[in-house]
Amino acid sequence: MNRSKDTGAERSKETGADFLQLDAAEAPPGGLTDWLTARLREAVADGRLPTGSRVPASRVLAAELGVSRGVVTDAYRRLAEAGQLAGRGRGGTVVVALTPPARQAVPRPEPKAAPAPALFRDDPDAEVFDHLRATPARIDLTPGVPDLAAFPRAAWLRAERAVLDGLAAPDLGYGDVRGTPALRQAVAHWLARNRGIRADPDEVLVVAGTAQALALLGRALGRAGITEVAVEDPGSLGARQHLAHWLAATPPVPVDAEGIRVDALRATRAPAVLLTPAHQYPTGVVLGGERRRELLCWAGEGGLVIEDDYDAEHRYDRPPVPALRAELPDRVCYAGSISKLLAPALRTGWLLVPRPLRGAVLDAKRFADLGNPVLPQLVLARLMESGELDRHLRLLRGRHRRRRDAMITAIRTQLPTATVHGAAAGLHLMLTLPEELGATDTELATAALARGVKVQPLSWHARLPYPPGLVLGYAALSPGAIAEGIATLGELVRRAGVSRPRRGDGPAPG
Amino acid sequence: MNRSKDTGAERSKETGADFLQLDAAEAPPGGLTDWLTARLREAVADGRLPTGSRVPASRVLAAELGVSRGVVTDAYRRLAEAGQLAGRGRGGTVVVALTPPARQAVPRPEPKAAPAPALFRDDPDAEVFDHLRATPARIDLTPGVPDLAAFPRAAWLRAERAVLDGLAAPDLGYGDVRGTPALRQAVAHWLARNRGIRADPDEVLVVAGTAQALALLGRALGRAGITEVAVEDPGSLGARQHLAHWLAATPPVPVDAEGIRVDALRATRAPAVLLTPAHQYPTGVVLGGERRRELLCWAGEGGLVIEDDYDAEHRYDRPPVPALRAELPDRVCYAGSISKLLAPALRTGWLLVPRPLRGAVLDAKRFADLGNPVLPQLVLARLMESGELDRHLRLLRGRHRRRRDAMITAIRTQLPTATVHGAAAGLHLMLTLPEELGATDTELATAALARGVKVQPLSWHARLPYPPGLVLGYAALSPGAIAEGIATLGELVRRAGVSRPRRGDGPAPG
Repeated sequence: MNRSKDTGAERSKETGADFLQLDAAEAPPGGLTDWLTARLREAVADGRLPTGSRVPASRVLAAELGVSRGVVTDAYRRLAEAGQLAGRGRGGTVVVALTPPARQAVPRPEPKAAPAPALFRDDPDAEVFDHLRATPARIDLTPGVPDLAAFPRAAWLRAERAVLDGLAAPDLGYGDVRGTPALRQAVAHWLARNRGIRADPDEVLVVAGTAQALALLGRALGRAGITEVAVEDPGSLGARQHLAHWLAATPPVPVDAEGIRVDALRATRAPAVLLTPAHQYPTGVVLGGERRRELLCWAGEGGLVIEDDYDAEHRYDRPPVPALRAELPDRVCYAGSISKLLAPALRTGWLLVPRPLRGAVLDAKRFADLGNPVLPQLVLARLMESGELDRHLRLLRGRHRRRRDAMITAIRTQLPTATVHGAAAGLHLMLTLPEELGATDTELATAALARGVKVQPLSWHARLPYPPGLVLGYAALSPGAIAEGIATLGELVRRAGVSRPRRGDGPAPG
Repeated sequence: MNRSKDTGAERSKETGADFLQLDAAEAPPGGLTDWLTARLREAVADGRLPTGSRVPASRVLAAELGVSRGVVTDAYRRLAEAGQLAGRGRGGTVVVALTPPARQAVPRPEPKAAPAPALFRDDPDAEVFDHLRATPARIDLTPGVPDLAAFPRAAWLRAERAVLDGLAAPDLGYGDVRGTPALRQAVAHWLARNRGIRADPDEVLVVAGTAQALALLGRALGRAGITEVAVEDPGSLGARQHLAHWLAATPPVPVDAEGIRVDALRATRAPAVLLTPAHQYPTGVVLGGERRRELLCWAGEGGLVIEDDYDAEHRYDRPPVPALRAELPDRVCYAGSISKLLAPALRTGWLLVPRPLRGAVLDAKRFADLGNPVLPQLVLARLMESGELDRHLRLLRGRHRRRRDAMITAIRTQLPTATVHGAAAGLHLMLTLPEELGATDTELATAALARGVKVQPLSWHARLPYPPGLVLGYAALSPGAIAEGIATLGELVRRAGVSRPRRGDGPAPG
């Protein structure tokens, strides 16, 4: 039969069954009736056989397919029994609407191009990052991803081949809720090597990124009666949204040049706090030595710390900052991920929690999803243990440093009134702008998007009063695109009427 | 320097730095101090430099590494600042315990070989499946997995290569919470083709298996004030445990030869019910036509159905049963997965929900994990759209049928007093045993495990009174192993003193 791909115009002229594109050779031996029934059901479902249309006479279809007429009448009978076909006497056999109900147009919950003014509202909702991501832009300066073009595709594929070659069949069944032993071991080694954390592989819980780590903690803490977790302010909007979904309250605690204000944390009386001590998000501040001691003292008195170590492996001009977890494992939950090392799309991370919380967090993971998928875990374990991930990190550091330098240079020229913060490490920097800007940072972000440049306003990440500003990612863009994006921002700021440079604190890495 | 792998005995004689296995050539250009600091921290963390031990003199280590002494003293200084090393005058520089605290033995939360009597308790807890999986057995007749040895490794790897070749860098960033468009499209096609369900790809939510589908529904329903979901009895213990974690109550509704008793469902006054209509778990009953109408009537009056279509694609002696979702999309949440088509380890499934629930379920997924990992989704989409998955399913059907037949034959010979249920489809069958068995089914399962044969007692899956029985998986075992396992069970049942065959209802597919 004719198996060429028919067009709509050709299809309208069909009177036989050609448009069904059926080939009886595809049927498994002895399974002709099953096969034909399924193909016809599919044609009804996808509209090739619309409601009210007449199916080919069984004799005709049998001849076209080269099968016995009984096969066709059996298939028609089954579909009639399932309420999809009905005999209409001389009208033949027709498709009836019983089973698949009338199709309705389904509005997309995630519009592909949300109107920019609605996007940069002062009170962003749960879908704001979906909208931001789905909004097209010429130059995307939003933070949060490493250089994804550098993803080690060849190494990943090689590792996947080795994993598939070495896999025993039972490894493909339901696995250990905590993660595969190979990855838990590799993570323990990684944490020892890179973050000074000593962990037994049995303490490591493999999770679907930091987002899931927060969800599991929210769930486990909630069941333990802890319904309030303080957060840094400014602090990650996304992380705060996640905690807020699971907990009753997320009181803000101000961050200054030394990191979180522990006195203000005490004043909230919150039993727990979410922190980014190695490179505070979004300010980039490193938690100072005195603050660190104050915080560990607060934790020693019973406070619980959730350490979001989101980009600690990326640093340029300073030595690594040891993880809090390394100093006080009994009071610190530690969350890390490969989102900033390899790619967020892998949805893989790890979580360490103090012993008393371990059972509740493991249960939360079990009843969330029974554990991460196995193949990507094994591939990642190979990349970590073979040194491939360390090589990748070194490569990224060089690329990211050049991009950061390009961004700072462009800011110095194009945004002389701005102050740069937190550029010694990470994948982003934060700009603050003079209060006299003449516009809010959401207005600035809106104007930038209208010019094809996508940025995040700093005010998204702050609930306490804070100067206007922007959070700018540099890791995923070429130096040229960075310069062009910053030039656009500079033009918008100049138009907003601000030209007076602030004294002293010029654009230097903070 | 000496880079041969040293043994414990050799290590104890070392006085220099050889045992650190350092090679300065591994350091990135310009990063010698960083590199050495990290390696030393690692050595402290993993115990090669235990607390109290003396590090090599800076002069000695510098000479051995072929680096300037300043590099070594800088690294030592950083570690001293981080509290990991301390000067002891003539005692040299020693490792102090501040950062990594004294190591404690960590008990495994999941013992590798749980004592069998504790395993088969009458009141299994949340960890029972972990314990069951971790318990070694010569012949594993527990249900729940397809023939994993048939996993299409070559096709998977080919698809992964094509995916990696075709991927754009932004695809590796944070993605669509609902799943990749490619997989949602492929699932919509699959459901139309195989399950008579007509769904727009935008209605499909990609989830981490049916376990996550239940978690998301539990969360979304709970927030909508629905805290009670009735379940079939007997019915899946695992599914009930998942719902019970998220909801206040899961009242049992008896299942008879026609499926769930809708009158009893009404009597519970529960607003929702979890069902396995195509192949009830574990009895294998197909929901009868009259019951189906009663149920759709109940749903039309406001009841909500959660359809767990866990193994509908596997059938041998009967035509496919249309999904409830196809008939009443406004009142049916539909959950499917590839756990029984490819492998549970992939943790991938899909969920369709009526429009009013869609926002809450999407939020639940967002705040659970921000969406499934992208690479496996794209690989799976290719396998589904290319016909590879259909081919795999045909292959599995043939293999599974032969294994099922082997099990039924063995039961007929070895367990003549048993009744076989639900063998016309799926990956398992259910046996009931005479009440006069002289032992509970948990005792039988315990005795079988002591003989190296792992099975699930039927009573795990029932809260209402039901005959003793076993749930036996046949899909993952060779016919020989199946025959051997059933012979062991037969011997144990005979020893338990039961030999009188029941009248009439002998071992035929139910």
